Amino acid sequence: MANTTGQVIKCKAAVAWEAGKPLVIEEVEVAPPQEMEVRIKILFTSLCHTDVYFWEAKGQTPVFPRIFGHEAGGIVESVGKGVTDMQPGDQVLPVFTGECKECRHCKSEESNMCDLLRINTDRGVMLTDGQSRFSINGKPIYNFVGCSTFSEYTVCHVGCVAKINPEAPLDKVCILSCGVSTGLGAALNVAKPKKGSTVAVFGLGAVGLGACEGARISGALRIIGVDLNASRFNEAKKFGCTEFVNPKDHSKPVQEVIAEMTDGGVDRSIECTGSIQAMISAFECVHDGWGVAVLVGVPNKDDAFKTHPMKLLNERTLKGTFFGNYKPRSDLPSVVEMYMNKELELEKFITHEVPFADINKAFDLMLKGEGLRCIIRM
Amino acid sequence: MANTTGQVIKCKAAVAWEAGKPLVIEEVEVAPPQEMEVRIKILFTSLCHTDVYFWEAKGQTPVFPRIFGHEAGGIVESVGKGVTDMQPGDQVLPVFTGECKECRHCKSEESNMCDLLRINTDRGVMLTDGQSRFSINGKPIYNFVGCSTFSEYTVCHVGCVAKINPEAPLDKVCILSCGVSTGLGAALNVAKPKKGSTVAVFGLGAVGLGACEGARISGALRIIGVDLNASRFNEAKKFGCTEFVNPKDHSKPVQEVIAEMTDGGVDRSIECTGSIQAMISAFECVHDGWGVAVLVGVPNKDDAFKTHPMKLLNERTLKGTFFGNYKPRSDLPSVVEMYMNKELELEKFITHEVPFADINKAFDLMLKGEGLRCIIRM
Repeated sequence: MANTTGQVIKCKAAVAWEAGKPLVIEEVEVAPPQEMEVRIKILFTSLCHTDVYFWEAKGQTPVFPRIFGHEAGGIVESVGKGVTDMQPGDQVLPVFTGECKECRHCKSEESNMCDLLRINTDRGVMLTDGQSRFSINGKPIYNFVGCSTFSEYTVCHVGCVAKINPEAPLDKVCILSCGVSTGLGAALNVAKPKKGSTVAVFGLGAVGLGACEGARISGALRIIGVDLNASRFNEAKKFGCTEFVNPKDHSKPVQEVIAEMTDGGVDRSIECTGSIQAMISAFECVHDGWGVAVLVGVPNKDDAFKTHPMKLLNERTLKGTFFGNYKPRSDLPSVVEMYMNKELELEKFITHEVPFADINKAFDLMLKGEGLRCIIRM
Repeated sequence: MANTTGQVIKCKAAVAWEAGKPLVIEEVEVAPPQEMEVRIKILFTSLCHTDVYFWEAKGQTPVFPRIFGHEAGGIVESVGKGVTDMQPGDQVLPVFTGECKECRHCKSEESNMCDLLRINTDRGVMLTDGQSRFSINGKPIYNFVGCSTFSEYTVCHVGCVAKINPEAPLDKVCILSCGVSTGLGAALNVAKPKKGSTVAVFGLGAVGLGACEGARISGALRIIGVDLNASRFNEAKKFGCTEFVNPKDHSKPVQEVIAEMTDGGVDRSIECTGSIQAMISAFECVHDGWGVAVLVGVPNKDDAFKTHPMKLLNERTLKGTFFGNYKPRSDLPSVVEMYMNKELELEKFITHEVPFADINKAFDLMLKGEGLRCIIRM
């Protein structure tokens, strides 16, 4: 491999020229990393709902042309000024949110919502100089959440890059960049179900199944999956799901159905759909005295969470989480280790694989609701 | 003292014959304790808002004639069948809620909401046989929350009685039966502020000042009191309160005022008023990433707690507590020890003292909002 340090790299990237239109594989120019940045050769990436959301740009600020992608694994190609804890050849996961290690959030044990590098879906440029590192014929192609991994090379702020075990297979652990860790961490770091407990998980997509996996690892005895799509239950069994409730099958609110199934309510619930009604149900289905409900799914702008305050006073806890409370740089390496130790199973999340040239097939699968994660080989 | 075991005791009690009418000191008959019950000679009792609430019976089920009172200290006179861990002469605090030590709640480390002995404000009789132990000329006088401490003798379920240090001065520690422990525990057991942190306390009555005291003991650096009555701040300073906000003094919502004072929000907030607007403000004034809001005050039946779900997703926690999460029998003795070790200061809560004959003066003081706790000497 020629030394490309300090040079512009020409490579292939999947460019979204317009909202909702198929991506086009183009030759793009990737500028060298600036101060506190890292240029990464992406080897594997996968598609997450959030990419599709912002590609559809229904309600979101449209930022085009743009390179999407934020779940990925790669190798550091070169580093910019000031980067001391990473070097070319390091195996890394880019992450859509960051950890500057300097702000109040990074210094708090309780938060991962870095002031400097917290997710920003509207910004299509780098923090350092307000420019994108991607261009075609001198015209900028915008960045997505500081990752833009649908490209053979990308540039990220070092605070958004987790250096992981060099032995870890990137075609598996790349999915830890976002959805799976979000669900897993919601269970392991926030809900913290005790051994033998009962957990309800609302929404059985990749995030919800990550939550089931976390509940399974924690030793939950009953894991109740809740989804409007009954076909999801079969898949969910592999993730420890023991029971299934489809709210459509019942005339009474699903929280009452669950309370009846569990002698008053579950010990923990994890909401992974973003539907406001599911959030309220997830809260109201936990047992009084000790129940904890964790909200993961992102709601609509105008939603209002509404409940009777006595539900709270009866010693229920309601909390939200962002990226499963994992700090990207400090904590993701240990999640990779959980996979290496065979504690965490990732293979079952990966239902499809396509070469980079067929990236639009991954979008088709997700739009049809087929499968969980589709790995895109670069 | 004559041995009264197994005998009906004739003594003085303050009887509420009608809602809102002054109590009348009457001679009542107190039946012996039945199975799992304890008869207690009350030495000191104090008046709590809850007594006044149910005595006024505006909106509450009227249960009359009734003997109120539930914050008290006394000495066990005799015990019923099956009581093994208490004996005549023991120093005790009766409590309005209980701990059977057998149910799921009692067996859970996380809950104090005993299935059997959880507070029941509508029941005026004992669990064992559905009878009150109080009567006048054979007509029953109803019980209040299993305590009825406005009587020289009362009978309680053993699960609602905490056996405490025999050296503890009952004229001080009697106030630990309810309000002060509720606020104190909300801080120490639920909000758990770290050393150097910032805490907002909504409502500066006895419960709120108990919460301030808990925050002070925890080493909070800033304690921001919020109350509609500015005169409360002077008193609150004794409990560690460092700043004061009166929502009436501001045109913007108090949560915004507090966020500006604290660079984005407080670390912990504790709501002790029961006003639904204060509950929402208490939640929304905690910092994202790590803020925890604890609800203590009891809301109206028809109130709805309403907030934007992103406030939750940004890693805020909302939880309710009941009696400060203290288990009456297991935990109250250690709160008494905190007082004995001079860690917890109780004297400053006690602003008035009256002889039993003047019990209606204690009601007058509370109705006028004067002082914090009035001790009634039996």
